[in-house]
Amino acid sequence: MSFTLDHRLADSSFPVAEWDLCHVRLKNDKSWHWLYLVPARERIREIYDLTAEDQQLLVAEIARAGRAINDLFKPDKINTAALGNMVPQLHVHIFGRYNNDPAWPKPVWAVDVPEVPYSEEEAAAKVRQFADYFAACKQA
Amino acid sequence: MSFTLDHRLADSSFPVAEWDLCHVRLKNDKSWHWLYLVPARERIREIYDLTAEDQQLLVAEIARAGRAINDLFKPDKINTAALGNMVPQLHVHIFGRYNNDPAWPKPVWAVDVPEVPYSEEEAAAKVRQFADYFAACKQA
Repeated sequence: MSFTLDHRLADSSFPVAEWDLCHVRLKNDKSWHWLYLVPARERIREIYDLTAEDQQLLVAEIARAGRAINDLFKPDKINTAALGNMVPQLHVHIFGRYNNDPAWPKPVWAVDVPEVPYSEEEAAAKVRQFADYFAACKQA
Repeated sequence: MSFTLDHRLADSSFPVAEWDLCHVRLKNDKSWHWLYLVPARERIREIYDLTAEDQQLLVAEIARAGRAINDLFKPDKINTAALGNMVPQLHVHIFGRYNNDPAWPKPVWAVDVPEVPYSEEEAAAKVRQFADYFAACKQA
């Protein structure tokens, strides 16, 4: 099935995995533990544009990604959001929040926290950390 | 099954419907077309805390709510978010965005838009508008 990841999503993240529905990407910002889930389907902007079957895959993959961030990094809360005002290709942000992070308890978008890119080695290590977790925990 | 809606969610919204999983509420802010979906399950903070069956209900109800806002109010984009940093009872925000709204294309939380409460009559009319839509469109 043909699918092209939007270049703005590709350029701001690293590949972690390809699941049944979604490409899993690590956002290139080490201020947060932050994944993108991007359904690998053409011309999907909204959750309701997905078939019922793909919607069920999506929620299972959202749960799996959220649990991974929780288990690996022990945040106080998982935040999940599908906005897409700037990049309409459907993508879901899933990231951890801490009660001492610079935006808490506000949404991260309410506070101007500069993005801090990973070094190549840091990104590779974090991608490996997720990949090892997902290999060990096949199901959410 | 016992379930108590968090008072902060109750106080900031009006009841629209009770679906198989979620209480559907209209946020009391006429700046936006904005629904809350609150799974009627005790002690659920994260999407992955729901059973697999309830996760499937959740995504179907998110799709149904998003399609309703789209069909009724023709926004340019639907935004969907489960944050819960302030109110940890799992709740999903679903609302419409317009390319001329005061925060576009930023997330609504990035801009300080004052909340504008509905009058009693306005709230009743909007709740009825959603209820009529949902009665006519049983499935997402």
